[in-house]
Amino acid sequence: MKVVAAIDSFKGCATSAEINQAVLSKLNPAIWQEKVNVPIADGGEGTIAAIQAALGGEEVRVESVDPLLRKIQGSYLLTTIENKKTAIIESATFIGIDLVEVSDKTVRQATSYGLGVAVADALQKVEQIYVTLGGSATSDGGLGMLQALGGKIVPNTTGNLLLTVEDIDLREVREKFKHVSLHVLADVTNEYCGSRSFANVFARQKGASSQTIKKMEQQANKVLQLVEKQGYLGNLSGTGAAGGLGGAFTWLGGNILSGFTTIQQLIGLETIIQDADLIFTGEGKLDAQTAQGKVPFGVANLAKKYHVPVIAVCGSRENYLGKMEELVLGAFSIQQGPISLEKAMEKQRTLSNLATLAKEVVQVFQYEKDK
Amino acid sequence: MKVVAAIDSFKGCATSAEINQAVLSKLNPAIWQEKVNVPIADGGEGTIAAIQAALGGEEVRVESVDPLLRKIQGSYLLTTIENKKTAIIESATFIGIDLVEVSDKTVRQATSYGLGVAVADALQKVEQIYVTLGGSATSDGGLGMLQALGGKIVPNTTGNLLLTVEDIDLREVREKFKHVSLHVLADVTNEYCGSRSFANVFARQKGASSQTIKKMEQQANKVLQLVEKQGYLGNLSGTGAAGGLGGAFTWLGGNILSGFTTIQQLIGLETIIQDADLIFTGEGKLDAQTAQGKVPFGVANLAKKYHVPVIAVCGSRENYLGKMEELVLGAFSIQQGPISLEKAMEKQRTLSNLATLAKEVVQVFQYEKDK
Repeated sequence: MKVVAAIDSFKGCATSAEINQAVLSKLNPAIWQEKVNVPIADGGEGTIAAIQAALGGEEVRVESVDPLLRKIQGSYLLTTIENKKTAIIESATFIGIDLVEVSDKTVRQATSYGLGVAVADALQKVEQIYVTLGGSATSDGGLGMLQALGGKIVPNTTGNLLLTVEDIDLREVREKFKHVSLHVLADVTNEYCGSRSFANVFARQKGASSQTIKKMEQQANKVLQLVEKQGYLGNLSGTGAAGGLGGAFTWLGGNILSGFTTIQQLIGLETIIQDADLIFTGEGKLDAQTAQGKVPFGVANLAKKYHVPVIAVCGSRENYLGKMEELVLGAFSIQQGPISLEKAMEKQRTLSNLATLAKEVVQVFQYEKDK
Repeated sequence: MKVVAAIDSFKGCATSAEINQAVLSKLNPAIWQEKVNVPIADGGEGTIAAIQAALGGEEVRVESVDPLLRKIQGSYLLTTIENKKTAIIESATFIGIDLVEVSDKTVRQATSYGLGVAVADALQKVEQIYVTLGGSATSDGGLGMLQALGGKIVPNTTGNLLLTVEDIDLREVREKFKHVSLHVLADVTNEYCGSRSFANVFARQKGASSQTIKKMEQQANKVLQLVEKQGYLGNLSGTGAAGGLGGAFTWLGGNILSGFTTIQQLIGLETIIQDADLIFTGEGKLDAQTAQGKVPFGVANLAKKYHVPVIAVCGSRENYLGKMEELVLGAFSIQQGPISLEKAMEKQRTLSNLATLAKEVVQVFQYEKDK
């Protein structure tokens, strides 16, 4: 029998590979002759690790800046996909929300420039680039990233250019992408402008005041008019991802893809699971949002196609899991009793609890087979 | 298919009957045509409820006193067992540790007199009496209980007679039990005197200082010599239960029984489970102590005899469960994530979590059958 573990990382606690390993560790090898650990991600944290585990490659270090233009070192993955030299860049490495303290002041300054530095570096080395969006601190409409790549933004200042932008010219920078394909992994379908725009939907959680949000939205409309006049794509689904980076990348010729779908294709998950007898998936927190394209939902949907049963594990779960409920046999929290969040996040405890839970759930699962 | 729930109460949270009901509530009735709720206990809290659920009967109210001789009202169960009028008395109702504040002063005063009052009341009405020990505040060698029934204790004072006793005469009180059989449900096998005595093993957790413990042990030896000289049974296994009440009841002709075994026989659990397809058991806290004769261990052992699979549920569990691990398919905590003990003890949350967990574990269990 074959069991596959494809569980998202438990953010701030353990990686996907570590969690998969723990879940598989105590399953009876006499029954489960084949145990497959598939590190997985949905375009958030762990994307590089997942792709590197499947395809190999090396990390390239880049000197760049964080959203507040403080120097940082980051890295991206250099690998090969369909014979093309490819860079995989996690934008959160350079502009992640964890890099700053959230406030109105921060969001009014935060720029995606540092991500552009990494993209520019990759542009010298590869034939295609994948950029994951998600988890960004910025709401600058992607203008900082464009500026770093050589886009002409007027006035040419530093910080959140969106709030001051008067004109924009992307002809030169667009040329640089003529021979490099650009793929953007987004985890939301929001637009650049309008009621579902990055300003109106996400800026507040990045610290923006109502006044800042209003200004951002006005300016985003101005930017959109400018780029549409120049013949670039407009207010498509996904262009509002990562504070407008989705839009900015499309103007460079990028196409916006679903994070999980793209990653599972890159790592060949479908081939791995189609002959499995049982699949474990999960993430740190299972809730009604899980069915909005997160890893466990993606894995469970894929498994359904091949009628492979799925068990979900998590650090915590809501009682109601929306569409996930129909896709899994069960969703189990690893907690063994009342516990503080802090203690629950301890890595060794988490891995030990995962191993115990998986072993016992599989004993329940196997019972009829063993009889 | 038939599923049986026989889960101990979660102390301070929900009764056995409530927990069983929650576990069974969401199981698919098209598959589980027969759902059986068996309230259960091991001689601690819930014994009367379990027996009443199985055998019927009425509660008899008694005016009595607590361990510090303050007036309390309590009740015992009047029922019929094998055509005999029977009283079931939970000693914790009258001398429970929850009734007092634990201290050396308390344990030097605490008397089992109030339990004796209830036994005396039952003695007028029935042909046999079951008394559950366990959870007592007293370490008086059972002398208060004997005094309440008419036993002659010299000097005849109030409070913890063990510390002052000089002589003891049980001839008259023993006469009263000539036509009444007396069964004592103990949850420990400790002796009246010696290294495993109630004084040496349990008195400290009831508040006793080292000095008090030493005095208790000396006096318990004196009592044992006196009663053995008068021809009563001596330092048997179980006589150290409930601060020596185990011993005192044997001098009245009582026999000491295992709590779980006796209760499961009284309620006919073996007959109920032998044709079940699945059994749920559990208790508030599953740990290495569970395999020392507690409800889940007893249920699981009985189930093993008939090769019925068992799933254990709990509020919290240790990672290591000793012999329980071999007896159950899995032991699952109902917690859905990090949570405080206080919130975890909320009844509605507990019942809701039990229902969700049981439903999903059973989906895993059923998978092969449904295929």
